[in-house]
Amino acid sequence: MADTKDTVVEGVEALTLNGKAEAEPVETGTDAQAQEGGAAAGAAVEDVVDPWNVASSNDTGVDYDKLIKRFGSSKIDDELIARFEKITGKPAHHLIRRGMFFSHRDLHTILTLKEQGKPFYLYTGRGPSSGSLHVGHLIPFTLTKWLQETFDVPLVIQLTDDEKTLWKDLKVEDAIKLARENAKDIVAMGFDVKKTFIFNNLEFMGKCPAMYQNIIRIQKCVTFNQVKGIFGFGDSDIIGKIGFPAAQAAPAISSTFPFLFGNKKVHCLIPCAIDQDPYFRMTRDVAPRLGFPKCALIHSTFFPALQGAKTKMSASDQNSAVFLTDTPKQIKNKINKYAFSGGRTTVEEHRQLGGVPEIDVSYQLLKFFLQDDAKLEEVRVAYRKGEMLTGEIKKLAVETLTPIVEQHQAARKLITEEVLDKYFELRPLKFAS
Amino acid sequence: MADTKDTVVEGVEALTLNGKAEAEPVETGTDAQAQEGGAAAGAAVEDVVDPWNVASSNDTGVDYDKLIKRFGSSKIDDELIARFEKITGKPAHHLIRRGMFFSHRDLHTILTLKEQGKPFYLYTGRGPSSGSLHVGHLIPFTLTKWLQETFDVPLVIQLTDDEKTLWKDLKVEDAIKLARENAKDIVAMGFDVKKTFIFNNLEFMGKCPAMYQNIIRIQKCVTFNQVKGIFGFGDSDIIGKIGFPAAQAAPAISSTFPFLFGNKKVHCLIPCAIDQDPYFRMTRDVAPRLGFPKCALIHSTFFPALQGAKTKMSASDQNSAVFLTDTPKQIKNKINKYAFSGGRTTVEEHRQLGGVPEIDVSYQLLKFFLQDDAKLEEVRVAYRKGEMLTGEIKKLAVETLTPIVEQHQAARKLITEEVLDKYFELRPLKFAS
Repeated sequence: MADTKDTVVEGVEALTLNGKAEAEPVETGTDAQAQEGGAAAGAAVEDVVDPWNVASSNDTGVDYDKLIKRFGSSKIDDELIARFEKITGKPAHHLIRRGMFFSHRDLHTILTLKEQGKPFYLYTGRGPSSGSLHVGHLIPFTLTKWLQETFDVPLVIQLTDDEKTLWKDLKVEDAIKLARENAKDIVAMGFDVKKTFIFNNLEFMGKCPAMYQNIIRIQKCVTFNQVKGIFGFGDSDIIGKIGFPAAQAAPAISSTFPFLFGNKKVHCLIPCAIDQDPYFRMTRDVAPRLGFPKCALIHSTFFPALQGAKTKMSASDQNSAVFLTDTPKQIKNKINKYAFSGGRTTVEEHRQLGGVPEIDVSYQLLKFFLQDDAKLEEVRVAYRKGEMLTGEIKKLAVETLTPIVEQHQAARKLITEEVLDKYFELRPLKFAS
Repeated sequence: MADTKDTVVEGVEALTLNGKAEAEPVETGTDAQAQEGGAAAGAAVEDVVDPWNVASSNDTGVDYDKLIKRFGSSKIDDELIARFEKITGKPAHHLIRRGMFFSHRDLHTILTLKEQGKPFYLYTGRGPSSGSLHVGHLIPFTLTKWLQETFDVPLVIQLTDDEKTLWKDLKVEDAIKLARENAKDIVAMGFDVKKTFIFNNLEFMGKCPAMYQNIIRIQKCVTFNQVKGIFGFGDSDIIGKIGFPAAQAAPAISSTFPFLFGNKKVHCLIPCAIDQDPYFRMTRDVAPRLGFPKCALIHSTFFPALQGAKTKMSASDQNSAVFLTDTPKQIKNKINKYAFSGGRTTVEEHRQLGGVPEIDVSYQLLKFFLQDDAKLEEVRVAYRKGEMLTGEIKKLAVETLTPIVEQHQAARKLITEEVLDKYFELRPLKFAS
């Protein structure tokens, strides 16, 4: 899977659409992007969202309501959240309540399964393109862990080291190493080993014939024209890219894991960032043809770069995000120096006009990481009114993130190769009784 | 791999080119075929030869000299055969001497390795599209076995059940079953289990991570434009087909088999029908980029259908070939009834003008299966002169084929699942000391 960082990294080209769209036909990017850009050229410029490019020209970032319409997914509305809370018997996670997980497909089906006591499993993943993760990478896994605990269901986590080998200047061996390193960060979040199976494609493919067999079944159902339309692939793309979507689709079909599900056709819920939706639109099209249920999805927004929703977050730019390896001093310096401010240019002006939390990165960080709803609302109101200054909201963001990063570092130190191997072992997982 | 039968089965469409080429643009077939057809439209119609279609409009079949030029391979000439015999210390196999293996790439390199006592391995394969093989299917394996015995080298045999799933109306499970059935026929030919590894992709992929890793490495080096040019794939083709060539390429790179070759970069010689050459042109292009030697090749001609070189051999038409499951009576009836004759319409005319062995299928069968050179030449001369009649040459063909088929059936009966499993086991093989 492409991850939050990657999706933003390559957004810079797409951003140039902004200056062009009104005047001349869009020539950059893939065919599919061009089509999208072309369709929007007469009106406002559309955000670019696909598994490899995410870019917006607005200070508030991507327009997610528009994206729901374009992708044909459904909004997570108050009614759905109420049903969710009723069925699970507890408040929804703050990432859901605050709209960071904002869109879904067939989540009602999953809730009905829960009501009926029927099984399903969770599937999420990460594309291991870098050894050092940033705090944004925690988000999909944070919600996934909460969903796993809430529903007591098995979880499979795919590390697409094959994808990263194909898309990046990365060797097979190095991609495998990155997958292992990333897995340590994931395991450090506290996933229950009895209910969690982690695998990297470049090694799992050679351990489980069902994976390749399902890939072939899927690849038999999808034409080049279709992946061209869905992903924007072109004739000069390598054949590895053209075939890859099947590798990300396969884990959404339960027979890929005979050691987990035997012959049962088990439903699947996928928490992921919305840019991964194209993979699963394809998967949902194919699954019924193979006799399996369509996977359900719960989509997150994108995590902002420190410099704001319009700028790119770069793996090579350590200052574009708070990394999980940062020291408390680095976190403090980064946020103070780089976190884009929704405050005014002078204290006087700020006191008078108030700040703009919607574009303030420190406030966004709090929305993601500060669990206390009352406190967050207090901050929002105070910042909006100008009672709270930029320095103060930055200080709160530092105080919120620092212990999270420190705890992560302490937990990660305990993840030995032996601990990790247990998660990668092909074995049955514990289901809800 | 596509095999002799498959290649001819689908030739019927291409055959219609014959009637069309002069008058109107070629509209059938893939882009690449169309290009080829188009290029030839002004002059004589070219034979169609690719991994899925083989067709010729000449009674004598495909023009192999032209094919060598078009493919850019080299002819196996007297000088090469002389060197071959000098280095191996024995006469070349009759399939080489008689020109049934007529073309090669880098065979001199392999002979030099033999001279220097350096290792190489053999790689061949079969696409298991049908449970019942015909005698023509024995040919590549006959030469491969002889090469293995002559050079005392390890051999890997790939059964492309994934390819057949993708190209045919065939389920994964059924393709795997056919692969096992076909493997029994191959094992029945007497391959030394200590030097022979047989694998089917749909299961091997899940046992050996190196296979998928090399496929990804290969798929990273090849664009859709390239496979479009080489194989004639189009936009409406399924993505499984587009990616598949890497699965046939991978076994030509020795690191695909770490249990055989460890880290050694070992040369590879591939005996195959010439229609498989496109796969290995691609492989030879990629291998050096991955730090491996280019595979060498030795190419065979196609095996004729009973009805002659111009007609199609069909798995659904039991009368188009002598099958390995035929009874002596069936063999006799088929050859007498269907084997295309190069004889004249009346005995008198035949005695006067003589027969035409080049288009006579019984004579072609003798060329493939009658080992005695002197006897074959005697037959050729007598038939050419009209001293030998059609009935007589058919009788000789029946007498030659019947014991071969009977012996095969007896040997195949001895191949239990346990015997077969030994060939499929991932294990080291015996090299020449």
